[in-house]
Amino acid sequence: MRLRNVKGSREMIAANDYVIHEETTKKGCWRAVFGNDNPIYIEIGMGKGQFLTTLAMEHPDINYVGIEKYSSVLIRAIEKQEELKLPNLVFIRMEAEYITDVFAPGEVGEIYLNFSDPWPKDRHAKRRLTSKEFLHRYEQILVPEGKVIFKTDNRELFDFSVEQVPEAGWQMISCTYDLHEHGNPEGNVMTEYETKFVAEGNPICRLVITPAETAKQ
Amino acid sequence: MRLRNVKGSREMIAANDYVIHEETTKKGCWRAVFGNDNPIYIEIGMGKGQFLTTLAMEHPDINYVGIEKYSSVLIRAIEKQEELKLPNLVFIRMEAEYITDVFAPGEVGEIYLNFSDPWPKDRHAKRRLTSKEFLHRYEQILVPEGKVIFKTDNRELFDFSVEQVPEAGWQMISCTYDLHEHGNPEGNVMTEYETKFVAEGNPICRLVITPAETAKQ
Repeated sequence: MRLRNVKGSREMIAANDYVIHEETTKKGCWRAVFGNDNPIYIEIGMGKGQFLTTLAMEHPDINYVGIEKYSSVLIRAIEKQEELKLPNLVFIRMEAEYITDVFAPGEVGEIYLNFSDPWPKDRHAKRRLTSKEFLHRYEQILVPEGKVIFKTDNRELFDFSVEQVPEAGWQMISCTYDLHEHGNPEGNVMTEYETKFVAEGNPICRLVITPAETAKQ
Repeated sequence: MRLRNVKGSREMIAANDYVIHEETTKKGCWRAVFGNDNPIYIEIGMGKGQFLTTLAMEHPDINYVGIEKYSSVLIRAIEKQEELKLPNLVFIRMEAEYITDVFAPGEVGEIYLNFSDPWPKDRHAKRRLTSKEFLHRYEQILVPEGKVIFKTDNRELFDFSVEQVPEAGWQMISCTYDLHEHGNPEGNVMTEYETKFVAEGNPICRLVITPAETAKQ
């Protein structure tokens, strides 16, 4: 991702009503944030938010939380949301590793990971959002039978992620190395990257996984 | 695999005591074949039998059945067994697709698939020994928590196999794209191919899977 420093973005984010501030105080209280009992789905590494904004428009009965650490892209998602004013979409600017400080057990229905940073060096494997370390964090916030839905065009990252599934004691629900082989599958919302990669003819891999313990319930 | 026609091999196989003839009559009666209650592990596409012969020597308390359709390689496994006379190793010359005619439900503890034919054409996908069609056959003969252990150096076949796991409703126990990354893992018996590929520095992939239903028991 090309990251330009957008002047004043930190200040704008700090003052915005669609951004959740002091997010750790919301842990266990997310129903109150949205004012309803609808399920909560999150995207980690939301970027400019096209994917999550589209989902929020398509599914008004689901609440969405977009998580992004970079102000310079988060600002674009906020600008879009300032126009749309969707009641079921909010954002958090934070590092993903503190996710369990922000959501209580069973508070999240699905987690989306789209074209996550591959962290190609072996010594950075723990930073990959599909590492077993992160899967263990997700286990602590997902509902029973909750899912992680991960898309990437990076084969090294995808293969690593497939390996991590049994390592973490998780279970595959589906796995494909070419999501668009027969056109865009029903219900698949494309990210900015995905649209570009598909236009260029690059295959997109998708993995849907669930913690094994919850899958047995 | 280079297949030479070994003259007289069919006749030699037909007359050999280590080869099970009229194999469908053994279905449900495999304990009687070996004369004990030890678990039965099978290899499908055994080739010259180095892998299974080594396992049979290392584990006298497990019975092994090597399945191979080509007489010209099966004959080599038989010649070796004629020297060793291991009481826990027999062979069948047959096509793998009839496996459920030969073993009854719960009669097989583990199934080994080593460097199986990749059948690269899409229209031959069902012939691949890790296709969901074959996984459904294996389900019908495996014990609860029974495993399929699959090794290959063919990435296309391996990726296909990973995809088939959730497709078939199976579950991964482990998955690696480089089995020998940190040397030969304990308990891993190397096949003829594997020894050669590892010497050449080619990574070996290994998948260990189980039917999900049995995994939950």
